[in-house]
Amino acid sequence: MNHYDLIVVGSGPGGYSAASQAGALGRKVLLIEKDHLGGVCTNKGCIPTKSLLNGAKQYFHAKTDTKLGVHCQEVTYSLSEAMAWKEEAIQTLRSSIEFVERTNKVDMVFGEAVFVSAHQVRVDGETYEGEYLILATGSSPFLPPIKGSEDRKRVLTSDEILCIDELPSSLAIIGGGVIGVEFASYFSMLGVKVCVIEMMDEILPMMDNEFARLMRRSMSGVDFYLGCKVKEITERQVVYTDAKGVEQSLDASLVLLSIGRKANIGGLEPLHLELGPKGVVVDGRMRTSVENIYAIGDVNGKSQLAHSAERMAIVAISNIFGNKDLEMRYDAIPWVVYGNPEASGCGLTETEAKKQGREVVCASAFMRSNGRFLAEQGKKASGLVKLVADAKTLSILGVHMIGPYSSEIIWGASQIIEAGMTVKDIKNTIFPHPSVSEVISACAWALDKRR
Amino acid sequence: MNHYDLIVVGSGPGGYSAASQAGALGRKVLLIEKDHLGGVCTNKGCIPTKSLLNGAKQYFHAKTDTKLGVHCQEVTYSLSEAMAWKEEAIQTLRSSIEFVERTNKVDMVFGEAVFVSAHQVRVDGETYEGEYLILATGSSPFLPPIKGSEDRKRVLTSDEILCIDELPSSLAIIGGGVIGVEFASYFSMLGVKVCVIEMMDEILPMMDNEFARLMRRSMSGVDFYLGCKVKEITERQVVYTDAKGVEQSLDASLVLLSIGRKANIGGLEPLHLELGPKGVVVDGRMRTSVENIYAIGDVNGKSQLAHSAERMAIVAISNIFGNKDLEMRYDAIPWVVYGNPEASGCGLTETEAKKQGREVVCASAFMRSNGRFLAEQGKKASGLVKLVADAKTLSILGVHMIGPYSSEIIWGASQIIEAGMTVKDIKNTIFPHPSVSEVISACAWALDKRR
Repeated sequence: MNHYDLIVVGSGPGGYSAASQAGALGRKVLLIEKDHLGGVCTNKGCIPTKSLLNGAKQYFHAKTDTKLGVHCQEVTYSLSEAMAWKEEAIQTLRSSIEFVERTNKVDMVFGEAVFVSAHQVRVDGETYEGEYLILATGSSPFLPPIKGSEDRKRVLTSDEILCIDELPSSLAIIGGGVIGVEFASYFSMLGVKVCVIEMMDEILPMMDNEFARLMRRSMSGVDFYLGCKVKEITERQVVYTDAKGVEQSLDASLVLLSIGRKANIGGLEPLHLELGPKGVVVDGRMRTSVENIYAIGDVNGKSQLAHSAERMAIVAISNIFGNKDLEMRYDAIPWVVYGNPEASGCGLTETEAKKQGREVVCASAFMRSNGRFLAEQGKKASGLVKLVADAKTLSILGVHMIGPYSSEIIWGASQIIEAGMTVKDIKNTIFPHPSVSEVISACAWALDKRR
Repeated sequence: MNHYDLIVVGSGPGGYSAASQAGALGRKVLLIEKDHLGGVCTNKGCIPTKSLLNGAKQYFHAKTDTKLGVHCQEVTYSLSEAMAWKEEAIQTLRSSIEFVERTNKVDMVFGEAVFVSAHQVRVDGETYEGEYLILATGSSPFLPPIKGSEDRKRVLTSDEILCIDELPSSLAIIGGGVIGVEFASYFSMLGVKVCVIEMMDEILPMMDNEFARLMRRSMSGVDFYLGCKVKEITERQVVYTDAKGVEQSLDASLVLLSIGRKANIGGLEPLHLELGPKGVVVDGRMRTSVENIYAIGDVNGKSQLAHSAERMAIVAISNIFGNKDLEMRYDAIPWVVYGNPEASGCGLTETEAKKQGREVVCASAFMRSNGRFLAEQGKKASGLVKLVADAKTLSILGVHMIGPYSSEIIWGASQIIEAGMTVKDIKNTIFPHPSVSEVISACAWALDKRR
């Protein structure tokens, strides 16, 4: 029998990081993947969407943005070229993951993992034994029990919509979370008539309300239907009850279901793990209820983000093979919406802080007072930033923003929150001028005007 | 006579910040400006160049970048529209500076300041008396004594080239610092034949050599002549001696002089200040050799950057009216080159660290292993990042990069250097995926592979 120090099941950002790290420590590691290396992130999530979104932004700017003196005639978008480019990016990243695993002497087998016991996994009839097991089986799009949603040619999830071969004339997106909003942004920039139907009374629940509102307003090509519950998808329409309980319908040649993702826990029964409503239950060290089994990434439902999974891999590997005290921290995990406009955040929102009963002080600012924003976007463009700080210590607890470059500014917020920096510390550092990042400094000065 | 607590001369980022801060403290303040509010930054520097550069990037992408499936026919660039947009941004910022000064009850007079004594300044025959004086008179383009450079129609500085009304067919840029490289990038993106003639053996002296080399290689439309000394500018040519001492010449319909900027110290004689080779001599608190006179921004020659001037204003105002212990720190001042590609840095380069005899460890990485970079730019694109850390403590001393979004990533580097964060701290924070900012995390892991 093949014996390993560690068997990792699933090769997304959590799984591939865990495997390569353990391999780097000289451990004998097996990585099992049923599909392609890289998991959802590389193949069906982060990477393909960002590749497509970047092209759509280029198209949209070329077509509509003449304020800086650039004029383009006949702007066209080739979906097939965009898809081919996206595929190439995916292939390159898969190869580089494979290279890293091989460099760290990780064995890889491709096939469906069949869990036999806490120490045994079978793939294609072959049994592998592991002292430790890391589950990194990820998540899949949640399919709601909506009548008509079984028409999988017209009703797609994010998995399938990344592989379409022609643009729909209209698209109804059910669910206004990050995935729904990014696809709404992508398709509307390409000229597709897009609507988003959201059951809650606001989109993007990780944002304060005024931010979510601004996102909606900024996505001028998209119609939002809030507080609406979809009843049925017919051959040409989506039927829903609106916020007042009245039945309504709208036309859509394609429907995207983006209601959420559910942990992939099928087949785990032989392991007798404790399961919660969101997935496999883990402690702060990513350990499940079974001593030698850890669960990282989407399968534990704690934070469905690629970079959270990567961090959980570090925590799990540390606890298995090294420092047993390393715990996962959730208070400075950044998130990004890569649409047009971009949005990002890290740490507590004002709403969350107040829900937790924390005393906080906040400062927010429109970006149009920022020099670079103004020079590039103009005074009519919208952008918003908010800083949330502890009312007593003035430690930074959260940074949130909508506007250009948000995706690349936000990493610094993780640093200042993790370092425990205060408003005064921010005031004492020098921000590059002119940069949109200066809005954070402006908020710090607004929070504490003392010199 | 008009008596003030503080008279500030010059309304660039240093001057206008100092004036509004003192005003906010309830002091009676006069701000004197001979031209427009905002100084070089707003009117002839940061803001107009970023506005123009952004348009040129759009043009260049629309014209050449089809990899993401976007195709544009007949891409045209209207210089007059670009200039009008730029003017609007400038006007808006001037107005907002004026608004801030008025809000803080700062008196403003427009006219040339004539220095009478350490406490008296005259403008248009009116004498103003100040307890304290802040000199924020800025800098001007240095005009080298090159034969033929007096033809101010064809030989321009950055001041005039921002107001041309048609694109030249070819442009020779004398001086490969930040200003020269940004204009080289701007004009070459628009299809102008550009060459840069640099006397030193490399461009961009604040970069390590491999970075400067990569910048040159990435600006494919620009010819660089290194180690070359310009002898004469004739009616159609620039005559220079090359690195081997051989006389050469090249054609140029327009010439930009960007050899450096010199402090504006004319008229300061009645103040009897100590002057150094770079400008007015100041201590760490921005105080000149005369007790009640401070000098901030380009005029002291310490760091010719808008954000340095702004920080110096904070330091000066604090020392005049508040905390007498605040000193200027120069070890975490970010800089940015806003060309194509972008580049930025903060803190020590490897070369500088070694010159100072510091023991450092460095890690650098090409960006093409980064997911977002790959998805958006492709595997053939070039980007580079380097982390410099103290060899013993692993404290971060410098971050330097070339690649997309560099301008908006670098603020976080100031934070981590100022907070004294170490490589281990960086490893323990979560970076958003996929983002180019992750390259910093990758370097931290490369520097310290321990889990």
